[in-house]
Amino acid sequence: MLYPGNAKKTYTKPITYSNRGMDLESIINDTNKYYIDNSIAFIYKKPTPIGLVKVNDKRIESAYFKEASTLDYVGLYKGYYIEFDAKVTKNITSFPLNNIKPHQLKHIEIINNNKGIVFLIIEMNSNYYCLMGSTLLDFIKNNTVKSIPFSFIKDNAYELKYNYVKGLNYLKYIDIYLGGTNEKNEKNEEVK
Amino acid sequence: MLYPGNAKKTYTKPITYSNRGMDLESIINDTNKYYIDNSIAFIYKKPTPIGLVKVNDKRIESAYFKEASTLDYVGLYKGYYIEFDAKVTKNITSFPLNNIKPHQLKHIEIINNNKGIVFLIIEMNSNYYCLMGSTLLDFIKNNTVKSIPFSFIKDNAYELKYNYVKGLNYLKYIDIYLGGTNEKNEKNEEVK
Repeated sequence: MLYPGNAKKTYTKPITYSNRGMDLESIINDTNKYYIDNSIAFIYKKPTPIGLVKVNDKRIESAYFKEASTLDYVGLYKGYYIEFDAKVTKNITSFPLNNIKPHQLKHIEIINNNKGIVFLIIEMNSNYYCLMGSTLLDFIKNNTVKSIPFSFIKDNAYELKYNYVKGLNYLKYIDIYLGGTNEKNEKNEEVK
Repeated sequence: MLYPGNAKKTYTKPITYSNRGMDLESIINDTNKYYIDNSIAFIYKKPTPIGLVKVNDKRIESAYFKEASTLDYVGLYKGYYIEFDAKVTKNITSFPLNNIKPHQLKHIEIINNNKGIVFLIIEMNSNYYCLMGSTLLDFIKNNTVKSIPFSFIKDNAYELKYNYVKGLNYLKYIDIYLGGTNEKNEKNEEVK
């Protein structure tokens, strides 16, 4: 069975940032599976939106990939709405903001304004960082540069530690972001 | 452009409940658009999961519809995680529980246990009802019947009033469900 990842050889366009993120995507999928298996959170990768061209007896004979207008992962954690995206850069000194498409940035702003929990998981310099949407929006508001210095990410994002059982365990840092001691927070501490 | 709705004539299988729900789906899509346009809530129909068979240069040449394992609509309302499904029945006296697939019921239970807001919008006897997941789960726990009597729905679900501007405006009843006076609740009352 072919899917976009395997079908890379037939592509004529250059590799995009989202292809670079393939390994990070697997790690995040494993992390989310760990959360589901342990009833900690229910966060899923959204299906890629497809534009149907020709359908015959429920078989799709022609279709195309539509650009997602939102972020890749969405779900539920202790009643909270969670949405995030995975980003990979090979840049060493800064994270180029063109990794985040304008409609994604708009979406991050909407989620943040409506009390959802929104963030990016960034792979950079062989480390993983959880950059909260609010921090990203503040940076963009206060700076005119086209990339975020790595030093800013180190100082303002949560560094995620990879563990082969729990994956990136990013919810540990979402708990910290939420205040660490909120009333929904006492459960599951052992499991995580 | 063909899509499953238009391609109905090529189907050999009998019409399913989800086809019957087509008009309700349009009403819900309009309601959600009203919410988005007025920055009240950000609730979307999930893309139908597709199983890819053959992809050539990003064009999909063969694929099939996968069964969704969750509910159709997901989104954010004032920080709350919302998930729901639309169900239509032509039955007059009761709502057959086989409208809800076992994995959907399991999913409703998971969302409910994790403090998400989960419900069904049911079209029945030319009216629309918002049946909360917790009410549904209690009914199933306390009854062995295979359908929910219409009298139970009338007594225990919120009856939604259709309005050509605001659609079904189901969030009005979610506010009531949440207590009506919670701290997140003072805004947008005029708009709704």
